[in-house]
Order: sequence, then structure tokens, then C-alpha cells
Amino acid sequence: MEQYREPIYPIEPWDVTETEYNPQNNYRNETTFALSNGYIGTRGTYEEAYDFPATEGLEGNFINGFYESEDIRYGEWNFGFPEKSQSLLNLPDVKAVRLYLDDEMLDMREGAVTEYSRALHMKEGTVTREFVWTSPKGRSVKVELERFVSFTDKNLMAMRYRVTALNFSGTIRFVSELNGNVENHTRVTNPLVDYGPFGRRLVPEALEAGDDGLFYQGHTLKSGLTMACGATHTLSQVVPLPEGHKLTGYPAENYSVFFKTGEYTADADYQIKIAEQETVCLEKFIVYTSDLDMAKDDLHEFVLCKLKSTQNEGYDSLSASHKNYVHDFWKNADVTVDGDDALQQGIRFNLFHIMQAAGRDGKTGMGAKGLTGEGYEGHYFWDTEMYVMPVFIYTAPDIAKKLLDYRFNTLDIARDRARVLGHQTGALYPWRTINGEEASTYFPLGTAQYHINADIAYAFWLYVTVTGDMEYLKDCAAEVLCETARVWADVGSFAECKGNRYCICAVTGPDEYNAIVDNNFYTNLMARENLRNALEALELLKKHEPAACQQLIEKLGLTGDETVYWQRIIDNMYFPYDEKRQVYPLDDGFMMRKPWDDSKIAPEKRHLLYENFHPLFVYRQRMSKQADAILGMYLHSNLFTEEELKRNYDFYQEVTLHHSSLSTCIFGILACEIGYYEEAYTYFTQSARMDLDDYHNNFYAGIHAANMAGTWQAIVNGFAGLRTNAGYLELHPYLPSQWKGYTFKINYQGSRLEVSVKEDGTQITLEQGNAVSFKLNNTEYHLAKEGDIVHESKTIQSNFL
Amino acid sequence: MEQYREPIYPIEPWDVTETEYNPQNNYRNETTFALSNGYIGTRGTYEEAYDFPATEGLEGNFINGFYESEDIRYGEWNFGFPEKSQSLLNLPDVKAVRLYLDDEMLDMREGAVTEYSRALHMKEGTVTREFVWTSPKGRSVKVELERFVSFTDKNLMAMRYRVTALNFSGTIRFVSELNGNVENHTRVTNPLVDYGPFGRRLVPEALEAGDDGLFYQGHTLKSGLTMACGATHTLSQVVPLPEGHKLTGYPAENYSVFFKTGEYTADADYQIKIAEQETVCLEKFIVYTSDLDMAKDDLHEFVLCKLKSTQNEGYDSLSASHKNYVHDFWKNADVTVDGDDALQQGIRFNLFHIMQAAGRDGKTGMGAKGLTGEGYEGHYFWDTEMYVMPVFIYTAPDIAKKLLDYRFNTLDIARDRARVLGHQTGALYPWRTINGEEASTYFPLGTAQYHINADIAYAFWLYVTVTGDMEYLKDCAAEVLCETARVWADVGSFAECKGNRYCICAVTGPDEYNAIVDNNFYTNLMARENLRNALEALELLKKHEPAACQQLIEKLGLTGDETVYWQRIIDNMYFPYDEKRQVYPLDDGFMMRKPWDDSKIAPEKRHLLYENFHPLFVYRQRMSKQADAILGMYLHSNLFTEEELKRNYDFYQEVTLHHSSLSTCIFGILACEIGYYEEAYTYFTQSARMDLDDYHNNFYAGIHAANMAGTWQAIVNGFAGLRTNAGYLELHPYLPSQWKGYTFKINYQGSRLEVSVKEDGTQITLEQGNAVSFKLNNTEYHLAKEGDIVHESKTIQSNFL
Repeated sequence: MEQYREPIYPIEPWDVTETEYNPQNNYRNETTFALSNGYIGTRGTYEEAYDFPATEGLEGNFINGFYESEDIRYGEWNFGFPEKSQSLLNLPDVKAVRLYLDDEMLDMREGAVTEYSRALHMKEGTVTREFVWTSPKGRSVKVELERFVSFTDKNLMAMRYRVTALNFSGTIRFVSELNGNVENHTRVTNPLVDYGPFGRRLVPEALEAGDDGLFYQGHTLKSGLTMACGATHTLSQVVPLPEGHKLTGYPAENYSVFFKTGEYTADADYQIKIAEQETVCLEKFIVYTSDLDMAKDDLHEFVLCKLKSTQNEGYDSLSASHKNYVHDFWKNADVTVDGDDALQQGIRFNLFHIMQAAGRDGKTGMGAKGLTGEGYEGHYFWDTEMYVMPVFIYTAPDIAKKLLDYRFNTLDIARDRARVLGHQTGALYPWRTINGEEASTYFPLGTAQYHINADIAYAFWLYVTVTGDMEYLKDCAAEVLCETARVWADVGSFAECKGNRYCICAVTGPDEYNAIVDNNFYTNLMARENLRNALEALELLKKHEPAACQQLIEKLGLTGDETVYWQRIIDNMYFPYDEKRQVYPLDDGFMMRKPWDDSKIAPEKRHLLYENFHPLFVYRQRMSKQADAILGMYLHSNLFTEEELKRNYDFYQEVTLHHSSLSTCIFGILACEIGYYEEAYTYFTQSARMDLDDYHNNFYAGIHAANMAGTWQAIVNGFAGLRTNAGYLELHPYLPSQWKGYTFKINYQGSRLEVSVKEDGTQITLEQGNAVSFKLNNTEYHLAKEGDIVHESKTIQSNFL
Repeated sequence: MEQYREPIYPIEPWDVTETEYNPQNNYRNETTFALSNGYIGTRGTYEEAYDFPATEGLEGNFINGFYESEDIRYGEWNFGFPEKSQSLLNLPDVKAVRLYLDDEMLDMREGAVTEYSRALHMKEGTVTREFVWTSPKGRSVKVELERFVSFTDKNLMAMRYRVTALNFSGTIRFVSELNGNVENHTRVTNPLVDYGPFGRRLVPEALEAGDDGLFYQGHTLKSGLTMACGATHTLSQVVPLPEGHKLTGYPAENYSVFFKTGEYTADADYQIKIAEQETVCLEKFIVYTSDLDMAKDDLHEFVLCKLKSTQNEGYDSLSASHKNYVHDFWKNADVTVDGDDALQQGIRFNLFHIMQAAGRDGKTGMGAKGLTGEGYEGHYFWDTEMYVMPVFIYTAPDIAKKLLDYRFNTLDIARDRARVLGHQTGALYPWRTINGEEASTYFPLGTAQYHINADIAYAFWLYVTVTGDMEYLKDCAAEVLCETARVWADVGSFAECKGNRYCICAVTGPDEYNAIVDNNFYTNLMARENLRNALEALELLKKHEPAACQQLIEKLGLTGDETVYWQRIIDNMYFPYDEKRQVYPLDDGFMMRKPWDDSKIAPEKRHLLYENFHPLFVYRQRMSKQADAILGMYLHSNLFTEEELKRNYDFYQEVTLHHSSLSTCIFGILACEIGYYEEAYTYFTQSARMDLDDYHNNFYAGIHAANMAGTWQAIVNGFAGLRTNAGYLELHPYLPSQWKGYTFKINYQGSRLEVSVKEDGTQITLEQGNAVSFKLNNTEYHLAKEGDIVHESKTIQSNFL
């Protein structure tokens, strides 16, 4: 892990700006400038639709949940190995608009580009690009582009393309394209996976181009899904006025439009007479949908209607409501840091991207890379629940709920999966998936990661306890908690040789360098809490809604014997413990493994161990890829003394390689808790700008959503010491010496608090909602009504315990 | 495991006879009547070349070591996963001879078959078939067939086809074929493996049919190998004489021959005038070879020359020398059992098949299924070293040596493999292979089985100590022992948490239901003995050949530090131990796993767990597929007290499912050692006729060579209690109450002993060679010269210790 990288982009509070066009940075910037609303995702590619090779660029357009399958090939198959892959499918590109100045096509790689600037405007949720291009023949145009993916209409993406003829009069053309000739590039981004989908996977069913717009409909070869997309256009003239400018319809006599369809493409070709200094503007409205949302037969009408209505509403109006949504998001979620503009920018970049990434329809989750690339096949992992979910629970509980809905809606599939793994009751969630079925092809680092079950249960319980949403407990959470608990009660057994403690064998914890182990500390801890929370959920439900509780018990066939057995497991869970060091090893075998000697490994081979070393070699080393036991100790810090946390932190600090983007943020949080503030700050700086400065050199493949969210946790749970794991809200704020102050908001039990930590102390304001009680530095406070404030001058973090 | 099955074939001492033609038994009988000389293998298919579907029959012809490759597909590849498969390739069939009676083709499924008999003659190494066939039109012929695969010429197979016209005169035709249109059927026999080779894999380069014979040459699509085969024929008349009969050349005017080649085939069509009661005889000489033995350009000449010379020598002469070899084999290897003819037959069947299976050229090993089928892709496993090798070491040390040569000759490949697994020195043998490279596609049950290294070292050391072959120690064995030892010294480490004992993590022992475990008892034990034997080998070599010893040390760059470190490991090897039960569990985690409840598993799912249960489910159960720790305790029984052996036997007896054919023979041997004679006898009966009576219902796919050899061990090491692990030869004979006596021979230090155990005691005769010392029932004896005999009346086995 590098300690520091020079910022790639200028430091700005709300923007990320590329100040110069350089094709070498293209691949990475496609992710930086990617836009998404949790349903549509589009990479930050250019309207010119450059044909970059697979190592330099990836045109990417996705619909969350829309995947293609292949038969998975195994040298040797075993029962329960998934047989069908799922890959987020790269869909037809509708963004392309080629600009011609008479016979010359705009290509930034030719001619001259000046006054270039491309920016992600995080406050508004838009990407703009401006530049002056002088063609090889000397024609100059000023180009101004803007695009957004609407947060208020999930099917909509819109863009505006303005051209001003600077030194010529003549004909310009906008050739607006819809290109269905696309393939996934997965093989290039992950050489380990032989997974497909290979080649072009959408079979066109309809291609239209005409006054109603461009339209495409196609179905996948194997997953049986159908998608449709389309575009309409509005052409107008920009009339400069003293108070700004005005758009008017383009004079009909000054342009013609020609439509054309090919085997995979549909084009609208606008040929426009333009005079020197005139500005012409093309607005393009783009719609995507699929039969995951409606009957296949309705796709065509849906797209065309939506295109018509959005065109009627117009770009400015659509853009305004989109921007309102984004403003509202920041109102709840913004974190300010006074004293470090670079970190401030990194934090907002991270929050913006996770906000973009989350599915919001209850049918889709959130990919580890959001909808910004093909990385990890677009799969949803535990990253969502353990890294991202807390951020949403505290700042945007509606989004959190929708993501939880997705898990609830796939509970039956998880029940089926539990049977495949030999569990007669309960549900086992898949390690990686899109459609709810297990898609991990390599079970030691996939299905064996049973902790996914406890992670999902943890997220449900955190949502219920932080929001106080009893309706959700009744409708969804209690059932998920009980069904996941059942698998924990079946997977292990009370082992005589371990003092009749409950042991769980043959699992893989979060740490992927130690696979198929016995008694992974994190797993056993989280399993126990899963069982405990299931019992608590039943108690809570019984108290609030006894009839619903009874109904659930009957539905699940839960018996008293079963819950007594759960309690017995809770009371007797086994944890690996090293007497000499008085630490909790990663698992039973960890202390026996070979001491890791980093110096024996060539530097270029260190980061990607599985590409350079056999798994058995990796498994035999006493080292850890990422936060594992440490994560469990942070989440359940109330169960450990500070001394314990220190000993364990020191131990894991030595043996952890941080080869995962999920690691440093968690170490930073625990470092705060035990007063290792300098280390905490170092970890934090690494997390906060990890993607913006591309620490892992793979941002091209998509965002690291978990780490992005981990940054928020590092501030709120780390520096501000927020916890609810003891059953109440508590904060223990610390102000890093490098900062003058920081603020953030949290939603708690339906109310919104603003927390401001400054050199003179901590101030907590009840911004909205009913009375809230909490502990600040171990003192209990009560804010009774909106506007109430508590201020405490103590800012150095006190001990937790 | 079933306790008993009705014999499939009549009980006979030296033959296995099928007395009735029934196509339902065809698939299994193809293995029963398979012939091989360790180089060529041919399944017991019919000369009529019936076109059975893949579920009812498999024409199979193999050359040991001749394989085809495919690119192995992995859902997710990791570094070090083999990328090329190896599959023993099914080669062109040259056995087919179709018989026509005028226009009617012999087909036993039509017309009437009487006086049918097909027999494997184990004493001679031939298969014969006789029957009378009456065609649908009423023509009757007597058919007499014999075939053998020559032990005295590895490239040669020969057959004799006699037909007597019983009730007609007319024209008969022998259409003798060479058919290159063949494919492997692997997918059918093992549904778990997606491995290829798929489709026809040999590309014909030459097809000839003429007076010189039939000839085929073809190369594989991917492995780059080329093979050639051919056949010549001798037609003759059988003239009945008072003293027997005589063959004379067939009168030229009475027959014509037509040759024909097709895209994949070459035929010789003999059209013969025959009179009623006349007998005509076709001898067919078949040759196989490949460019593994010679330059590709020499194949054609080699085959044609060999065909000419064998034809010149004639069937009777070739057959006689072949039979001599087989007689000699029995002279050294036969085991007689007086009192149970069924077991006697089973034992000989087993010995005969393993004798057939072993490669004898130092370039090839011995497949787990010999050369009798495509099962396990024809791969060589540890079965050879741990089950078969001891039999050859004691009865046919020349064969043993050739098999060891194969391992020695692939030592460099094993060195390369060790580097792939991260070991900077030493050699790691592949879990399954043909060409010496690792071919296991599923490392938890493949590459993780590091014990293969110690198994191979064990076999080298056993060979050296039993034969006293110091030349071989110098030339090969010492090097292999040191190079395998080096991997053991690198794979583990001294773990503070285990009292600084040497721990070996992340391996799989012999037991395939417990994978990727820490401190597998068998592995740690065998690793320690591997290290110990390496040091002993160096000592021995130093004593006998100090210069050679020095040379080896220099070649390997062995340092004093290294051997000191080996000794430290030997002195401090860690073994899992359960204090309460005072047993050695299978591995560190074994006692924590869930108690196995067989009753919860549907009977039809029990035997093939991996086809019906996810590996993680299997790994979590406290049960064992097969002998594992128990095997180690048998091999090194000198290191354990009888009480220890009893406790461990009792423990493993409870938890072992015997789902592997490698299990019961080993349990039987240990049962003998601790005086559990009845259990030993039950295990023995299950082993002895396991294949002959098809206990596993998969004999169609090929022999279970390991169990076949295990039968011999069960008698010699089990009932007779033979051991050499204490550094000398000792016997502790026991006579099962069901028997009147048994005898066997062993070679020891170059001399041959005959051991005869009867009700009145044990008699040991020095049949051949120099003086031999040994212990019989703990009394030391010395036989000074050939013919010397010792007789001891004690027959109930005494304690070992």
C-alpha cells in the first residue's frame, strides 16, 4: 500500500476536473466520470465514441440487474457448484453523437484541442466538457457538453451538445447513434476468470430510426432477458441575450434530418446550416428499460412514450428536478472537513459514487463496482451490507431499505441454496450474485464465505435498530434474521475436544488469503450475533406485534427447541485464542502457519498474490489480506476491553498486507478507538482518495464502492467514534490535529442530527424530528426538539469503556 | 460396503469363465477379459466389433503413456492450476475380424449361440472364446478364438480365429479391420470431469492395406504425439491328425484377399471356399507403437518390420514365449489358499491384473485402472507406490524398479512443480499424471495431496531396503529421497503455539472427505519418515559409496544446515492427538467436525458423496472416506504400541465409510496386527473379490489396481504379518480358521523365500539365493543355503511388540 500519491485532478471542493485531454488517462477517467442512478449506469466515455482497444477504454452502459449467463466450465465439477454464470451485460450505447464540420469529423486526437475541461459536478450530479477544437483544415468550434443520469426518472439519461462555429460558416452534422454492436470485455479486466459472456450476447429484435426516435430491442442468448433503449432529439438555436441566452427551435429551413438503421445500429443524421459565431444545441434524451420491469411486449411502447414525455418536458426541467434530488442527498449526507481540501474532495467523490451505485427498486442490489464497469462481473457482494449499508442507514435510510428489500426478495433463492449445501432449514445467501443465485465459481473464496449470511443479518438488524422501523422488522427483517440464524445452528456442532463449545468448520472468513479454515474468529463472532439478533428480533416483534410474531413463527415452523438451541450456541460459541499473545487468531490454524516474509516476494508480485502464487502457498502463510477479525472487533467493540482491542490491533497490524480495498478504512476506525490517532489518520488518508488517486491502479475497471463508503465510516465511526452496538447511540469525537473541524449528519430513530467537531469542542444539533437521547463522551444527553443543541468542549477522544 | 456378493463367474483356480453370452454383462466383462502387457492394453471386446452404445460397451485400445491434451477450463483460474489436461487416448482398434457365412455376418445377438464359453486363462495370460453359432438361415459354425498381448514383445498383440463349417459348404469371409474412427468416452464414466478429450483426436497421416499388412499412423490434435499400428495375417487350414491336428498353408486356389482403405479404416477381406467339417484358421498379428519410443519418421518401418518378423515367427512360437513369461511370474508371485477356492480365484485374478498393468520401460507408470479403461483418464496416482509397489518389490523387483525409474525420470518435472508451489528447492510430484506434469484440475483433492511425495519416497526406500540394491540407491533413490524431503522441510514451520513442533498446514491426506486440513496425521508421519529415510539414504550411500555420496551432495547443493534442519523436524514433528480418547485424529480439525449421521443420507446418495453433496458439507462431517491415519500406522507399525493401534483402529473403524476401494484391505491388515481376526477376514473377503464380483458396480470403467494389490498385502502383511519397518524381515503368521493353509513367495535381499502357513505351523524355505535372516514370531532364524527350511508350529499370530 502506497502512503501517498500526488493528486490526479485539481483540488476542488465539489468538482473533479480533467484539465487536459490525454488519451493515456482515458480508461481511468471513464470511471471517474461515470454516471449512474442505481438503475442505468454509463461510463464516462466521449460522445465521439472513439474506438479504443480493450486495454485503453471500455464503452459501458448497464442496467442494474440485467445480466447474461454462460455455462460455467469446471475441470472438475462437484455437486452444488453453480452451473450458470451471471455477468452484468454491457448494453447498446446510445450516447454517441458524432460531429462533422462539413467533411471533417470531430476527433480530439487530430487537429488542435484548446481550453479543454471536463468536470464531474458532484453537487449537481452532472458531467460537463468544454473545449475548442480546430480541425486539421482550420475550422474552429467551441464545444459544450453536459449529461446526467436522472435520479428522478430511473429510465432516463439526458445530454446536451452545443456547438459554436468560431471561424467559419457552413454545414455541420450531428450524427446521433444507437449502437447495439457491443461485447463485454471481462477477460481483459480479470485474467483469472473464464466466465464469459464471450462475444456479442444481445440478439436484436427491433431497430428503428425515425421521427419517434431511435429504438433498439434485443434479448440475451442465454439468460432469457430482453432490454430496450431509445433516444429522441431536440435541435435548437442558442440566441445570446443581454441577460444570458435563450433557446429557440432551430429554423426548419436550416436543417434536415436523415434516419438510418443497420444490422445493429440506428442513426439520426442532423445536417445543419450554421453561420460563424452561431451556436446550435442538440438535446438527446435516452431511455433504457428491460423486461425485468414489465412484460416484454410492453417495452416498445414504454420506451417511445417515455421518450416523448421527456422530450416534451425538456432538458432544463428534467435537469432541474435531477439536481434537486442530488442537493437533497447532500443535505443529509454531506461531510465537511475544514483544513484539508484534498480529503474533502475525496470524501465527496466517494459519497457521490456510492449514492450513484445503489439499486433503488428493491429488485436490485449494489455491485462492488456499482454500475461503473464490468469488474467482478457486476456482482453484488457483502461489500454492500458491511461497508455501504451503514452509510445509507444513517444518511439515506430509504436507499438502505431498498437494498435490504433486494435481499428479502431473494430469500427463497437463499433457502434453496441452503438445501444444496445440506442444511435442512434456513437460508444461505450467495457470496456473489445478481439474480439471487450463487455465482461464485470457486467455492474456497466464494460459497465458503458463509459470513455473508451474518453480514446480511447484521445490516437488517442495524437498519431496524438505528431507524426504529418496526414495520420493516415485522415485514422483512425478523424473517431474514431467523432464516440466516438457522444455517448457523446447523453448520457447526458442540465439540467435546473444545470443551463442548460450538465450532464452525470449513468456512472462509472475509480474509481471502486464509481459506477453508476452522473457527474463523469473525465468522464465529458474527454468527453468534446473528443468532442473538434473531432472538432479539423475535422478542421485539412479540412486544410490538404479538400477532405478527406468532404468524412468523408459524410460517417458519420455528420451535421452542430451536430457539433454546440457538441460545445454547450463543452461550457457548468457541473462539480461537492464543494464550501466549492473548489475542484472537484469525482462525484455529493461523498461528501454525509460516511466518510471512514479504522480502522473499518480488515487489511486482506482491499485490496480486493469486496471479503469482498457488493458493496452497498463500494459505500456508501467517498473514492476512485484509481486515477480518479486526472488522468483527470494530462492529462489536462493546464486547471487548480496550486492552484486548489494542493487543489484537497490534497483532493484526503486523500480519495484514492490506491487499484488499476493504482493509485500511477498518483498521483506521479501530485505531481511533484505541487512541492510535496517527495511524488512524494515515489509514484514513489512504482510504479517502484511494479511487480518486487510483492507488490500486485498477480504477479503470470500476469504483471500489466498499472503500468509498468505508471513508464515511472512518470519519463517523472512526474519528467521531459513533457506535450503536451497546444498544444506544454514542459518540467519542476526536479532531485530527491536521484539521480545524468537521461536520456530518446522521439519521437516528427518524430524526436528523448534525454533528460538528471543532477545536473548541463538539456540537450536536437536532436538525429535524423528535427528541433524541445519546451519549457524548460517555455523558448522556437529550435533545428534546428541533433546533436543540448540545455542546461539549472535550474533543480528544475518551476511552470507550 | 456390501458384505458379500454371489460370484459372477464359476469358481475355478486359474480361470475366469463366462459360460453364456449376455449383452447385459458386456460392459463389465470387457474389463474382466482385458489384456495388457503394461504397454499395450486392450479391453475384452469381441472380434465382431459390436457397436454398443456408450453405456453398454467401450472398445478400448491403449498405449501406456500415450495421451491427448485439452485446454482445461476453470470458472476461475489461479496461479499453478494445470492448464493442459492429459487423457490416456483411446487408439485405433485392430482386433476386429468380422466373419461372414456367405451373406450372413456373425452376430451373436441373432441366430442361436450354443456351447458358449469365454475364459481368461490366468496361468497362460490368454483369453479364449468358443461357441457354436447357427445363423438365421441355419448355417452352423464352430468358432474358436484365442488372443494374447505379448509379455515378451511389448509392441505385439496376437490372435487366432478358427472356424469350422459344421453343416454347410460354401464361402466364408474374414473381414479383418483396422478402425481409426475412435473417441474417448470419458464423460460417460465420470460425470464430474469436464476434461476431454472430446471427439476424435487422432488425425490420420497414413492408412494402408496390402500384402505388407494393414497400417495406420496418426497424430493427436493437441499433445503433439504420433502413434502407429498395423496388422498382418496368416491364413491356414487345420488338418485333423490322429495325434492332434496340424496347420498347413491354405491352398491359394481356395481363397482370395481384397484390401481396402477408407477415411479412417483399413481392411483385409479374405474370401475362402470351405467344405463341410473343414476348419480354417486366421492368425492376426497386431503391432502398436508411438513416437514416445522412436523418431516419428521411423514408425512406419518399425511397424512393418515387426509385423513381418512376428508373422514369420508364427503364432505358436510367439504364444509359447509369452506363456513362459507368465509361468515365471507365477513362480515368484503366486499365492495359494487351501480351503477357499473363491478367494483363491479372486487373489489370482487380482495378481494377474496388476501384473498386466505395470509399465515396464521406465518411461511409463501404472494407471489406477491399469490399461483396462478410460477411468481416471488413465492417470497414475499414489496407488502405484503405496498399494502395488510392495507386491512387485517382494515378487517382481524388476517391475518395481521400472516403475520407480518412471518417477526418477520425471524428477526434473517435479522440481519445476515444486517451484510453482513456492518451494525454492526440492521436488513435488504430481497428484495425477501421465507425462509427469500435474494434471489434477481440482487442487483440494489433487495438488493438496502432498503426501504423494512421501509415498513415492517410501516406495524408493522400501525397494532399496528389501532388495538391497545399492546401485539403485546410488543412481536414483537417494536423489529422489533428498529432493522430496526438501519440500517437507519447506512446507511447514515450527509453531510456537504447538510447543515449537513442526506443523504442516493446508494439505489433504489420503482421505478425500477431509480436504485442505492442518496437520493431517498420515502426512506428518510420512513426511517425517521421508526426511528420516533421506538422512538414512545419505548415510548408507556414504558408507557404501562415499564418492557417489559426495557427488550427490554437490549436485543437489545440500548443506549441513539443511540436514541438521531435517533432523530437527524429525525430532519435533507435530501430531494431532485427542487426549480424551487417546487417539490420533485424522487432522487438527477432525474432532470438531459434526458427528456423521449416515441415516440422514439417502442410501442411493451415500456412495458418491461428491455427486450428491457440496464439498463443504462433506468437509464438515466427522467421518472418513478411507484408510488414512490407519494406513500410516500399518506402514510404520513399529512406532506404535499394540494398545495404541487398537485404540486408533477402534476409533477409525467407527468413522470410516470405506467409500474408496483403497480402504478395506488396509483395515484388514491392521485388524490382523491387533488380533481382530474375524474383522480382518471379513475385510479380506471384501477386498479379494471386489473387482471379480464388481462390488463397486463400476468395474466396467477399469480395474481397481490398488485394491487388487491390497489383497496380496492383506495376506502377506496381514495374515502372515510380514514387516520390514523395524529394519529387518519379520513374520507373524496367522491362519484364518476358514482355511487349511496358504503359501506365498517373497524376494528379500536377492533371495527367494517360500512361506507356507498350515494348521501344523509355518514353514519357510530358502528357495533360491544367498543366506537370509529373519524373525518368525519374534524368534530369529537364519537360512544359510538354498533348500534350507525353518518350521515353527506356532500359527496364531503373536503380538508384534
